[in-house]
Amino acid sequence: MWQLYQFPLCPFSRKVRLMLGEKGVGYELVRESPWQRRDEFLHLNPAGQTPVMVQGALALSDSSAICEYFEEVIEKAPMLGGDAAARAEIRRLVAWFDEKFYGEVVAPLMHERMLKRIVHRASPDAKALRDAMRQANAHMDYVDWLLDHRRWLGGPVLSLADLAAAAHISVADYLGGIDWRGHDQTKQWYSGLKSRPSFRPLLAERMEVIGPPAHYDKVDFGE
Amino acid sequence: MWQLYQFPLCPFSRKVRLMLGEKGVGYELVRESPWQRRDEFLHLNPAGQTPVMVQGALALSDSSAICEYFEEVIEKAPMLGGDAAARAEIRRLVAWFDEKFYGEVVAPLMHERMLKRIVHRASPDAKALRDAMRQANAHMDYVDWLLDHRRWLGGPVLSLADLAAAAHISVADYLGGIDWRGHDQTKQWYSGLKSRPSFRPLLAERMEVIGPPAHYDKVDFGE
Repeated sequence: MWQLYQFPLCPFSRKVRLMLGEKGVGYELVRESPWQRRDEFLHLNPAGQTPVMVQGALALSDSSAICEYFEEVIEKAPMLGGDAAARAEIRRLVAWFDEKFYGEVVAPLMHERMLKRIVHRASPDAKALRDAMRQANAHMDYVDWLLDHRRWLGGPVLSLADLAAAAHISVADYLGGIDWRGHDQTKQWYSGLKSRPSFRPLLAERMEVIGPPAHYDKVDFGE
Repeated sequence: MWQLYQFPLCPFSRKVRLMLGEKGVGYELVRESPWQRRDEFLHLNPAGQTPVMVQGALALSDSSAICEYFEEVIEKAPMLGGDAAARAEIRRLVAWFDEKFYGEVVAPLMHERMLKRIVHRASPDAKALRDAMRQANAHMDYVDWLLDHRRWLGGPVLSLADLAAAAHISVADYLGGIDWRGHDQTKQWYSGLKSRPSFRPLLAERMEVIGPPAHYDKVDFGE
């Protein structure tokens, strides 16, 4: 049985868990708070980041390397399908959410709303939160635009691009950073993802001390 | 013929160029300064980052997506070889250099020594430079350690891990951020890479206004 080291609001662990859920790979969760920099965890992954997956002597880290690994070893539910150009487009979008959306939206929200509370015992900075929410809105416009042109974010079928986007958006939404008004296409796409069996367990989890808004785990946004 | 949009000190473009060189893929360079945020370039890649590769109607962006693309379509000189676990280890190390080494070493060096000069017309901050060089030294210790245990960074054969590491180290070295003393294993490994035909053209290029140290393009470090 694989062990997956993570904490409930880690967007990269969520991406991996959505992929494992779609592919039907079983795993056991191990709670890890990477900001504590535990020696045993740094030994598994010297980069000090979640997720890490361990089975026997094999320890995999870096969420993209983990996703590519399971795409290679588990044929079921391909998440990087199509020809080389289609796969390049899916990977481009995964990088978009892992780097750009994470850096501009999720990381500042996590810093202000989670790490300041848990680690630094400080109050969130109102301007940083406003900036992150403004960036989130621009990203949601881009997702709207993609969905105007395609059935799913990366092309005609569900792919790792959708899972990466949903993972990051779900953490931003938990932290109150998403204003859904005016993003009907994205809302409909996200509602479909929320109802998937791979997503349900993630939406049921809570980070200690911090609660999500009321609409967070509701497929219909509570409307 | 592929066109590759880049500027001489872009480490991600260097990684792609090393891979194309090893695989024997021809391309034409197009100079792009992403900090100018040209409309036509943003149309090719809304993330606004180099490298971008264009051939006919196909535009590829994100350096990892580009490398995976050419690994899939060109069989020659595999750079992600081995079984799934070996490939995961190569990808983990590529991410290490693209994210951690870039974020801690290359990005601050580029900001202080290149962007401040070209864009902001400001002087570099001595403390930021010292911090980047200290981080570089810790990374070089890690590379030494890897090379104590393996023939190449990712395992027994040359891989994308070596190309990514060499790409980022070469930009840090150009900007005077690497102190090679005490890193004999890494120096010997890097010397071998410097002498490869895929690396020679990169080492011959210069960024306007900024020159590299004397040892930069010498296979024997001028010793």
